Amino acid sequence: MTIGVDQERLVNEIEELALISDAEAPAVTRIVFTPTDLKARAWLIARCEKAGLAVRQDPIGNIFARWTGSDPSLAAVGTGSHIDAIPNAGKYDGVVGVLGGLEAIRSLRDSGFRPKRSIELLLFTSEEPTRFGIGCLGSRLLSGTLSADAARKLLDKAGASIEEVRRNAGFQGSLEEVRLPDGYYKAFVELHIEQGPLLEQQKIPLGIVTKIAAPASLRFSIAGVGGHAGAVLMPDRRDALCAAAELILAIESAARTSGAVDTVATVGICEVFPGAVNSIPSRVDLTVDIRDTNLERRDAVMLAIQAARQTVAVRRQVPIHEELLNADAPAQCDPSITETLSQCCVKHQLAFIPMVSRAYHDSLFMSRTAPVAMLFIPCRNGYSHRPDEYASREDIGRGVTVLAEALATLAA
Amino acid sequence: MTIGVDQERLVNEIEELALISDAEAPAVTRIVFTPTDLKARAWLIARCEKAGLAVRQDPIGNIFARWTGSDPSLAAVGTGSHIDAIPNAGKYDGVVGVLGGLEAIRSLRDSGFRPKRSIELLLFTSEEPTRFGIGCLGSRLLSGTLSADAARKLLDKAGASIEEVRRNAGFQGSLEEVRLPDGYYKAFVELHIEQGPLLEQQKIPLGIVTKIAAPASLRFSIAGVGGHAGAVLMPDRRDALCAAAELILAIESAARTSGAVDTVATVGICEVFPGAVNSIPSRVDLTVDIRDTNLERRDAVMLAIQAARQTVAVRRQVPIHEELLNADAPAQCDPSITETLSQCCVKHQLAFIPMVSRAYHDSLFMSRTAPVAMLFIPCRNGYSHRPDEYASREDIGRGVTVLAEALATLAA
Repeated sequence: MTIGVDQERLVNEIEELALISDAEAPAVTRIVFTPTDLKARAWLIARCEKAGLAVRQDPIGNIFARWTGSDPSLAAVGTGSHIDAIPNAGKYDGVVGVLGGLEAIRSLRDSGFRPKRSIELLLFTSEEPTRFGIGCLGSRLLSGTLSADAARKLLDKAGASIEEVRRNAGFQGSLEEVRLPDGYYKAFVELHIEQGPLLEQQKIPLGIVTKIAAPASLRFSIAGVGGHAGAVLMPDRRDALCAAAELILAIESAARTSGAVDTVATVGICEVFPGAVNSIPSRVDLTVDIRDTNLERRDAVMLAIQAARQTVAVRRQVPIHEELLNADAPAQCDPSITETLSQCCVKHQLAFIPMVSRAYHDSLFMSRTAPVAMLFIPCRNGYSHRPDEYASREDIGRGVTVLAEALATLAA
Repeated sequence: MTIGVDQERLVNEIEELALISDAEAPAVTRIVFTPTDLKARAWLIARCEKAGLAVRQDPIGNIFARWTGSDPSLAAVGTGSHIDAIPNAGKYDGVVGVLGGLEAIRSLRDSGFRPKRSIELLLFTSEEPTRFGIGCLGSRLLSGTLSADAARKLLDKAGASIEEVRRNAGFQGSLEEVRLPDGYYKAFVELHIEQGPLLEQQKIPLGIVTKIAAPASLRFSIAGVGGHAGAVLMPDRRDALCAAAELILAIESAARTSGAVDTVATVGICEVFPGAVNSIPSRVDLTVDIRDTNLERRDAVMLAIQAARQTVAVRRQVPIHEELLNADAPAQCDPSITETLSQCCVKHQLAFIPMVSRAYHDSLFMSRTAPVAMLFIPCRNGYSHRPDEYASREDIGRGVTVLAEALATLAA
């Protein structure tokens, strides 16, 4: 069997999908269950059907596109990722895993290969936390990490419940039905851009992920006292934004002094109310994202941040409310799948290194219901979640070739 | 002549106007030239016409409602304020000066008084900087502080020019026509809530303003480097929000250590891009408002802030672009008008104190084309620009009584 990945077709599809966006090109914005997201999903389904795959969608909108194997009673082999994109992001992030997975399946079929196990392409709903404040919504529900009851409590920024939003988007049925039965997948492999600079710096085309870092996120709501910017003197102020500034610097410092370079903490959202030039901020909402490959160290950093919150709140006399949005454990990839990936790299004479995924992915949650592994390809400067995110067609092609080889091996 | 201010009618009007708002009661949001602002203006014009005043509007939307005096050739006596309101503000701010001015005129007429000089109620366009980033747009143009050419360069947040916005709102003619001829007003008196706590704390019903503090505002745009919150390690980051946090604290510190309690500095706007929980902030825009009663001290604080900007930019390697939005000189009130106001207080047996206005007002700019003074009444806790801003009907009534007495004296 010779796998012939059609790089041209794949890159054209990546470009085409990038135009289904709420941002001006080259930026991509695709928020879950917006008209743009629904349009992108319809576009993907049409591509999958054209490739002869049987498509089904579950009540949260996860899309399964199946190439039925010669023995459909066997557990399937899965691959896939997400196509939702944070505001002003790039074209490649989850898209390479979805369209690359589709191309891997097409190239296998074109090569004459016929799988014994079914091979299934998966599109996960809302890997990005943009709309509901929680990442990996689809894979959390698939893996039972998030219960249907807990999911039903989620609201978007406009106050709409997930039930309302998904049903308006056309996804019926009960969220209880989303959970996959144990043993549904024999293996799940996610192809992804690295989102970091290591592969590029070391000029190595492939990374085989052995561990996925543990993410946690917190929301702080700082309740200051508003007032007129001219009339309230400095000693009388309880400025919510000044308190936020201290907390932001304390969060940065906690991550920097954890004792390991693997610790990162980010305040990505800082919303100021009322938000007028001549008004003292009365409230600031911050969202903090904390990650580490080591769970204990990450939790120690969270404790340091929580202590800083206390200090700032007391010294400035501004109450700071804290909400833990999520705190997930890190995942280990399955050694037999990573071994398969290594052998596929060797077969195609492609260099690879074992890696840690510092970004989290749907595979983190899929690891709780199936053996998983991830395959990384380089991206320019390590940039991701930006309009200038970029992976070359050659690097994408190499990733898809190894993915196809691995799917064939696992499904044979 | 006995001036009988109808407190009931006035308070009912204040409540009625508060309902023309883009925020949920009791909050008031009224941004210049929005449908809501235009509705409020139409409501006011109807009230003025019902009171028998001759109404005209200039090309920037300043409204003049005139009670023609027995000698129309004499310079008029003016009073008034604004009705635009920042997001989530209160009912009283500029409204007391507008509706209080109208009530003063009505009560004078009801008392049988007939003025020699015309008395004119003025509604200034866009005292608040919310939409165009510059406060006192109407009075700056009236007084020639802002040239028509400079005004035409102003854009709102959506990128619409002031020419486009005002013409769409129905205000035709050239902005050059807005400038008042010198000597148009013999005197201008603005009634306003204090927006600070002093009158309430000292249980004194009236403040006569002798000086208006000098405001300045700056905009900083901090250009960091975005990226994925999981993948970029801490030492490699150029986080725009962490840089903003340092700058915010430096601004607070510069105001606190100026050597005088009269210095205030506020960061009221902090906008973070892209604004996603898992994305390192690539850009932050801050707007800073700096005020002092002493021009040199204010400028020294601005220099300290500009130095902090340099330090932060260099240490964090993030370029910080600075734009000076405005830097106005403080104003002195006219001694003969403040003396008139004092005599009116004495006549009505009302206690008063001389005061500094720390907030700025249209009177600051009107002082460049006319002799001005301001009359303050207490507001609860000194709160302003908040939904719980409050002035009692009795305090408002006392202010309007003294205003009416002063208008009568000045126009006799």
